Amino acid sequence: MALRLARIYTGQPKVLKFAGHFHGWHDFLIPGADLPADCLPVPGIPPETAANTVIIAPNDPDAAERTLANDPQIGCVILEPTGGHFGAVPIRRDFLKAVREITERLGRLLIFDEVITGFRVHPGGAQGLYGVTPDLTTLAKILAGGLPGGCLAGRGDILASLEFRPTGQVPRTKIQEPSASKLGFGSSNLEFPRRGKMKHPGTFNANPLSAAAGVATLKIVATGQPGQTANDRARSLRGKLNKLFAQREANWVAYGEFSGFKLLAGYDGPRPTSDDFIPYDGDPIRLEGNKTPGFVHAFRCAMLLNAVDLPGLAGMTTVAHTEPDIDRTVAAVAAALDLMEAL
Amino acid sequence: MALRLARIYTGQPKVLKFAGHFHGWHDFLIPGADLPADCLPVPGIPPETAANTVIIAPNDPDAAERTLANDPQIGCVILEPTGGHFGAVPIRRDFLKAVREITERLGRLLIFDEVITGFRVHPGGAQGLYGVTPDLTTLAKILAGGLPGGCLAGRGDILASLEFRPTGQVPRTKIQEPSASKLGFGSSNLEFPRRGKMKHPGTFNANPLSAAAGVATLKIVATGQPGQTANDRARSLRGKLNKLFAQREANWVAYGEFSGFKLLAGYDGPRPTSDDFIPYDGDPIRLEGNKTPGFVHAFRCAMLLNAVDLPGLAGMTTVAHTEPDIDRTVAAVAAALDLMEAL
Repeated sequence: MALRLARIYTGQPKVLKFAGHFHGWHDFLIPGADLPADCLPVPGIPPETAANTVIIAPNDPDAAERTLANDPQIGCVILEPTGGHFGAVPIRRDFLKAVREITERLGRLLIFDEVITGFRVHPGGAQGLYGVTPDLTTLAKILAGGLPGGCLAGRGDILASLEFRPTGQVPRTKIQEPSASKLGFGSSNLEFPRRGKMKHPGTFNANPLSAAAGVATLKIVATGQPGQTANDRARSLRGKLNKLFAQREANWVAYGEFSGFKLLAGYDGPRPTSDDFIPYDGDPIRLEGNKTPGFVHAFRCAMLLNAVDLPGLAGMTTVAHTEPDIDRTVAAVAAALDLMEAL
Repeated sequence: MALRLARIYTGQPKVLKFAGHFHGWHDFLIPGADLPADCLPVPGIPPETAANTVIIAPNDPDAAERTLANDPQIGCVILEPTGGHFGAVPIRRDFLKAVREITERLGRLLIFDEVITGFRVHPGGAQGLYGVTPDLTTLAKILAGGLPGGCLAGRGDILASLEFRPTGQVPRTKIQEPSASKLGFGSSNLEFPRRGKMKHPGTFNANPLSAAAGVATLKIVATGQPGQTANDRARSLRGKLNKLFAQREANWVAYGEFSGFKLLAGYDGPRPTSDDFIPYDGDPIRLEGNKTPGFVHAFRCAMLLNAVDLPGLAGMTTVAHTEPDIDRTVAAVAAALDLMEAL
């Protein structure tokens, strides 16, 4: 919905996204969602559709500016504001500020995908925390209190294309008089209309149960306390894991921000000295590390044998996690390393 | 999801759909969703994407066969099996059987959008009622007991692209060895891969509450009783409305099937003599009738003033509707006609 609105507003078909950023599996945004392999063509997406998705590396403002300047067909830029997959390759405030400045200067729209970060990192989302305001924002997950639901927020002049008005006053779209020749059989006579209205019908629009759950949850989220507790737990977990890895002289490292944590195996860089440490200076390829499917599967099984279900080499904490949960997780990682080494 | 699976399976990018059929507002399927105006280009959809959607009139098997035979890039056909917008232009068994035979003979996939018809028309959906089996079926709405949810069902060899296997055994997609050159920056090197795996991650996949509501509801739906009751009520409403229109010599007619009803104003054809009546022999343009936004809005307001909230010139009945509800609706239409005539 955000993309189509951006296309209606800008009149331009292309979107710029960053390698490793996940924005759902929409045809236009699933390309490049994983590092590095899935930057290859995604099965089932026609090349003429994929050609409207331009993918560059994150954290390189010059590349972003060059790419936008060279291609006026790129109408918008979308990103996960703390980095792809909730910070697997972290993005920090400086890059966000740079992208905001560049997009504004070059007349492109900036979309923050805050599906994970809102309201996980801050009651105001990453944009509230960093003081960088995008043109459009996508939200979901905790927004509906854990029930299915999502939302699109942003500038009024862009969202105007979704606005309802009394149907007697404005035609619902740029229509001409009905006639047989307007059936458009064979999809000829295609053009790219600028502006215009966008329908967004849906059985579950404003679903009462999701809305009620969201209202109730957001009152609690707005206090900032749940996010803070989850952040504290994850920081503790990252610290305790890195202490474990140092003690065992294991070639692993933990990193991450807010309530997220990432594990990197086969790590050969310096040990972290503070919590804002980013391995390999954020090099996307080196951060991909030893994530072969076989390795991830073996580690997951080893963790399951120690009663912790970790979905891969990363995870998130919640307000429900206690410090004993963190200690149990660290002990499980220690036992999993034993198992992995014994292979 | 159905479309992408069809593209993966067939290796062909295009879809054939029928004018007036609504399959959500996905970029590839919203074109042609309304009759007749919206067969014009939809704002915000790039022409190279829209070019992969081929739209023809429903109920013309020869046109369908000719279109498919002339364009081998059309890999699949999608339709609402009782007609667009739950039968605004009705489709009957003969056309479904013809399309099934043609698609099978020409090696194209057939997708039934049973989001409304499953399980509204029959516990087995339209395909169960008519004995015509598509290759893929989309389901939603009552499937999840009124909570948000949906599902894709179909042939095992097509759905295999979604299948999970132990991650140690198969690469998750057709990947090559990771290297910097594979980041795919600039979306060059595009091709259309045949087959391959398709990810379908999602926070709300298998949402427990939606799943529980669906299981509970489908037990009741499977008895066939709720659908039968709703069908009976709508048949009664259609009959009583047509009696009203005849008595008043109003140029209106009611038609529809199962638990749906449609109203057509400005009607100048013969009065219906049976419930399976289709005005104007199903001519899509003439069935569009007097549906200007202003007229629809005025009628809706007139109905609201008589305490019935009808979303336009059509509606559906449910198991909760009683015969007194039907009579109240007929009385409201009579009063609304008085108001409309007094304008």
